[in-house]
Amino acid sequence: MSFNTFGHLFRVTTFGESHGPAIGCVVDGCPPRIPLRVEEIQSDLDRRRPGQSRFTTQRQEPDTVRILSGVFTDDATGTEMTTGTPIALLIENVDQRTKDYSDIRDKYRPGHAGFPYDAKYGFHDYRGGGRASARETASRVAAGAIARKVAPGLTVRGALVRMGPHAVDRTRWDWNEVPRNPFFCPDARTAELWASYLDGVRKAGSSVGAVIEIVADGVPAGLGAPVYGKLDADLAAAFMGINAVKGVEIGDGFAAADLSGEANADEMRMGNDGRPVFLSNHAGGILGGISTGQPIVARFAVKPTSSILLPRQTVDRYGRDTDIVTKGRHDPCVGIRAVPVGEAMMACVLADHYLRHRGQVGEGPSWPFPLPAR
Amino acid sequence: MSFNTFGHLFRVTTFGESHGPAIGCVVDGCPPRIPLRVEEIQSDLDRRRPGQSRFTTQRQEPDTVRILSGVFTDDATGTEMTTGTPIALLIENVDQRTKDYSDIRDKYRPGHAGFPYDAKYGFHDYRGGGRASARETASRVAAGAIARKVAPGLTVRGALVRMGPHAVDRTRWDWNEVPRNPFFCPDARTAELWASYLDGVRKAGSSVGAVIEIVADGVPAGLGAPVYGKLDADLAAAFMGINAVKGVEIGDGFAAADLSGEANADEMRMGNDGRPVFLSNHAGGILGGISTGQPIVARFAVKPTSSILLPRQTVDRYGRDTDIVTKGRHDPCVGIRAVPVGEAMMACVLADHYLRHRGQVGEGPSWPFPLPAR
Amino acid sequence: MSFNTFGHLFRVTTFGESHGPAIGCVVDGCPPRIPLRVEEIQSDLDRRRPGQSRFTTQRQEPDTVRILSGVFTDDATGTEMTTGTPIALLIENVDQRTKDYSDIRDKYRPGHAGFPYDAKYGFHDYRGGGRASARETASRVAAGAIARKVAPGLTVRGALVRMGPHAVDRTRWDWNEVPRNPFFCPDARTAELWASYLDGVRKAGSSVGAVIEIVADGVPAGLGAPVYGKLDADLAAAFMGINAVKGVEIGDGFAAADLSGEANADEMRMGNDGRPVFLSNHAGGILGGISTGQPIVARFAVKPTSSILLPRQTVDRYGRDTDIVTKGRHDPCVGIRAVPVGEAMMACVLADHYLRHRGQVGEGPSWPFPLPAR
Amino acid sequence: MSFNTFGHLFRVTTFGESHGPAIGCVVDGCPPRIPLRVEEIQSDLDRRRPGQSRFTTQRQEPDTVRILSGVFTDDATGTEMTTGTPIALLIENVDQRTKDYSDIRDKYRPGHAGFPYDAKYGFHDYRGGGRASARETASRVAAGAIARKVAPGLTVRGALVRMGPHAVDRTRWDWNEVPRNPFFCPDARTAELWASYLDGVRKAGSSVGAVIEIVADGVPAGLGAPVYGKLDADLAAAFMGINAVKGVEIGDGFAAADLSGEANADEMRMGNDGRPVFLSNHAGGILGGISTGQPIVARFAVKPTSSILLPRQTVDRYGRDTDIVTKGRHDPCVGIRAVPVGEAMMACVLADHYLRHRGQVGEGPSWPFPLPAR
Repeated sequence: MSFNTFGHLFRVTTFGESHGPAIGCVVDGCPPRIPLRVEEIQSDLDRRRPGQSRFTTQRQEPDTVRILSGVFTDDATGTEMTTGTPIALLIENVDQRTKDYSDIRDKYRPGHAGFPYDAKYGFHDYRGGGRASARETASRVAAGAIARKVAPGLTVRGALVRMGPHAVDRTRWDWNEVPRNPFFCPDARTAELWASYLDGVRKAGSSVGAVIEIVADGVPAGLGAPVYGKLDADLAAAFMGINAVKGVEIGDGFAAADLSGEANADEMRMGNDGRPVFLSNHAGGILGGISTGQPIVARFAVKPTSSILLPRQTVDRYGRDTDIVTKGRHDPCVGIRAVPVGEAMMACVLADHYLRHRGQVGEGPSWPFPLPAR
Repeated sequence: MSFNTFGHLFRVTTFGESHGPAIGCVVDGCPPRIPLRVEEIQSDLDRRRPGQSRFTTQRQEPDTVRILSGVFTDDATGTEMTTGTPIALLIENVDQRTKDYSDIRDKYRPGHAGFPYDAKYGFHDYRGGGRASARETASRVAAGAIARKVAPGLTVRGALVRMGPHAVDRTRWDWNEVPRNPFFCPDARTAELWASYLDGVRKAGSSVGAVIEIVADGVPAGLGAPVYGKLDADLAAAFMGINAVKGVEIGDGFAAADLSGEANADEMRMGNDGRPVFLSNHAGGILGGISTGQPIVARFAVKPTSSILLPRQTVDRYGRDTDIVTKGRHDPCVGIRAVPVGEAMMACVLADHYLRHRGQVGEGPSWPFPLPAR
Repeated sequence: MSFNTFGHLFRVTTFGESHGPAIGCVVDGCPPRIPLRVEEIQSDLDRRRPGQSRFTTQRQEPDTVRILSGVFTDDATGTEMTTGTPIALLIENVDQRTKDYSDIRDKYRPGHAGFPYDAKYGFHDYRGGGRASARETASRVAAGAIARKVAPGLTVRGALVRMGPHAVDRTRWDWNEVPRNPFFCPDARTAELWASYLDGVRKAGSSVGAVIEIVADGVPAGLGAPVYGKLDADLAAAFMGINAVKGVEIGDGFAAADLSGEANADEMRMGNDGRPVFLSNHAGGILGGISTGQPIVARFAVKPTSSILLPRQTVDRYGRDTDIVTKGRHDPCVGIRAVPVGEAMMACVLADHYLRHRGQVGEGPSWPFPLPAR
Repeated sequence: MSFNTFGHLFRVTTFGESHGPAIGCVVDGCPPRIPLRVEEIQSDLDRRRPGQSRFTTQRQEPDTVRILSGVFTDDATGTEMTTGTPIALLIENVDQRTKDYSDIRDKYRPGHAGFPYDAKYGFHDYRGGGRASARETASRVAAGAIARKVAPGLTVRGALVRMGPHAVDRTRWDWNEVPRNPFFCPDARTAELWASYLDGVRKAGSSVGAVIEIVADGVPAGLGAPVYGKLDADLAAAFMGINAVKGVEIGDGFAAADLSGEANADEMRMGNDGRPVFLSNHAGGILGGISTGQPIVARFAVKPTSSILLPRQTVDRYGRDTDIVTKGRHDPCVGIRAVPVGEAMMACVLADHYLRHRGQVGEGPSWPFPLPAR
């Protein structure tokens, strides 16, 4: 993972600032001959797009994506397919109100990347954070739409499972509910609660954090590695690399620290199809850095955005004490739009590990291997 | 981060299995002319070494480290210094009781890497887990001892902050206490509680999880990057890549999800030395993926070890249902020895980011840069 | 070096096909606060641009480049500077005559990438070679224009030194002559010879190979590494990675195989400025993979293009014997336009090694280091 | 390719200095379940070992290799197999006569890495060159012995084809002759000529350069990539990264610059097995960076060693003019022992590209892919 590239064999390089002419990405290493239509990418981007409800920033960005390379339309069949060469995706920025930022041009927002960004580069993109803007995540979602198609049979879904102090009721979890409310909430009743809660937060000029859960089904056993190339280590980097994320966990996560060894063990029995079945999934589908064949379950915590209307003490670039109020168009709960971003990162990590595993071990059956007779 | 290499400019490649002839690592990219004595590496290894109290595995490994390359003794001065070329470190395995494992040779331990390892490689190192063994972490600790010397002024310390349900009392936190008890506990009274608690766990043939906190002081502002090369993303991978870790958090971590934007903001004021001072550290020293100059604070959760004396249901390599009891010499709380490992990973990440930052931006002062007059 | 990314700290990722909507690149890792105007990039692109004389392809591509990100115009001073974040460059394709290729749609051109490309990807971009097109090198030239600015004091220049059997007369070498003729030839008299020779080749429907020499002045001693990160190894990959290149040499190159040890030794004497002076440069400025401070001198050989009007025997995608004649607009000597491409690759390698060296060793003086008194 | 690591999926990291306690390597990414015995590695090492004839250095190094990890002996069958985890190989240094170097301790050998090494690291390993020693190549040969087993059906062979001014007679080329003379010469008559020629060079205290040719048979079509991950670019880096190499060429190499397009084209016809047959191999088995299925043919030029008995002008570390004579035990023609090293590098590059291709494209047949009916 380089400064702006993610992945080893399925490699995503993103570029672009919040208030520059365009953002985009280059997806390198995608296998050839995968059918891919631009609408499939657009559809994922539309789920992340701002301005779709009163609960996200009112910035209006159509986020229309163009494929610049790496996809070829076969003349005979009219099918669009990946070619195996880099797929470049471009999204023009449309709605940049730079003047929104003139008041805070030289001030550091507490909790925002401005100060360390300036300390690093000697440069401060006051207009929405430059590369530190959540706008960069549109590129990730676009790349993720391609990544979803790499490993056959893979499904990646996400949901918001906590908003501030209000957790979802897991007994009422329904994946079908997720697209029906503006929160990616898997439970209609909790969604209603969140709506009124977030209205209050928004009107108070405040913001709130959240927890997102991402689940991948159809992951074969054997992806990952026992040491640094661990599947969970790469997932942790992927999620922690999303803006405003402060915590990541796999399976039972921090709760596993409280468990006894016997409570935490996912016992096994042979299934009817001749493959092992796990009787629980405390491990979240990963043991020793390698996928077990169970669903992969991960969560990450998003802090409240630092862009709030309540005045905070700060300093400016000239070394003077001052106060700041951020009046731009911001998300009261950035965690909401992090759901499709988290899905995209999970998909990218799995695509990469699928190809890496295939490189090292090939395409044979993953278990059981032929054993000498006992 | 490749399958067995960690880092970009400060690169650590480890090798070796739990029950092979030796383990070790190659540290590549270390700057030249850093004074380095083998005793400094040994001293860190001794902190991780098993068999030092009744609370860790009774396997007796002296973990004596040899430097095979990359360090040169100047004839004139007798000073040992790094040369800038790869530093190879070797630790011979001494106490391998392979027969301990004969009963479980073909059985998968629930919660252990055995099954996915076998599904990946078609090979099952029943003797202690092969590469998935915690023994591999000795190599990391050795590399970390070198990493600590790369960024000037850096201090990395760690402590166990929770064992099973029992958290440390932070009001009594004393770093000096950490080396005085067998738990790396920063509070003597909690250490006593843990001793009796863990005796109970051990005698029951069970095991328990833990949470570790690692703190780095002296990190300059500006290390990291706003997108994939985030300092916190690399830390998350580093910690999640330690055996048995299921969760990672930076600063307030998951608790940040509950906070309001104003509560989470680390407000700033100019300090007497002409540099900004933060009035709190919810961010754990990292904003937008870049260090702020505050201490970096991270935590990770370790699950209870899967090697327990209580029988669990499982299957074997031949696809038969069976039960398993793991009788080898194991840690009732592997989280304890993860403390120096976590320190080492933090040190390696910071050494790498220090060099990467110096590569891109050079050695000038990190803040303030000369600004045009207003 | 990944499939479409070049470099470690100064990283260039290119994308785009000959006949797609656009080509371009993302330059990641460039230091911040380097003044950079789009005209500087355009100026290098114009040197590589086709259709500027009768000796190159008549395809008309303005190669107008846009900077999409990574450069910021300071409001106060109006200065455009790099920000330290990814610089995305976009060049739209304008003059794609796809129908030129309809005759050879399913045939493999001998000496061309078509067959192995198809064997790899199951896909054959008959329209100009897809990613294998020399058009991709425009992206390299654009990146190289940025790379030239990274290491202070660096100058990279190139010249064509052989066309087919006709070598340049080195006794008349004049760098000022290079931009005055359509061949990048450092000698006016040879340029005249080449003009009449190449007219003959062109009219015969044939093509011819060439040798290019690239020289870098102002490279400090100490860049590179003694083993795999050798400066010359990276240069060799960079040049061999240019389309149609079949050989690379540094300094005396293949001629060094004929020399005795005493003839090949570049003897040294102390110069007036207190630094060593070399009395010759057989080594081409690199010893043991590390720059010596002398000019770096490299050459590469370009084969004749496979796109010729003379019929050749071949097969088609359906496994049938056939003949082929390539009627598109092609360069009779692709080596000519490879000169600015070679300069760009040299600049990129040196920028990367400059940053890598600074990362590992810092910015101190490279020689002499303080030594103990003798 | 990092400073001391080579390859992407099949990754070789080497360590160790000429006069330290040991050298060795870690081979990461090797597929699991490949039968591998230590004797196979030793056998390749023995071909490179010094002191086997009067034509190489008289340093006596048994080069006995130990496998420290990554190979497992199945108890039942007794078969040693790779496990898929890092294979660490260790070779102890035995015959280090450090005092040989005392006269030249502070002097730079012209043509040797000493000066730039010192300029880089501020450190000068006068005892045989440290990492710049040809001794490091033993590690490469060991890794190459493993690499040979990765791609099924691969054969890699090498020969010395020129010594100083004396080229081999290709009309008498016989691979069986190579192991029968001390020069890896494929022609017995040329070997005799070289013997008397090199005796003269050696007795004069001089040295001489050489050209080595490496040929790989059994490489499937489709390995490599059209842009930076070109197979020939990686080969060029691999060969140029061998000590003392100054030039690399593929197929016709520099001679291709002289050819016309029609002479250089490798025409094709359908073969009896339903796959295309090439009527010549000017391309050396690689077109557009991708293997064609023909044998891969590469050559590299080795300069004469800088360690000679004839006095040369130089400077010392203290900035004084002086003369130098190198009295240690050196090879009069280092090119000889570069033959097995070149084979190893070719094998490593092919193993890496075989895995990278399998990762991206899978294991299906490489040509023809199913095509729509015409």
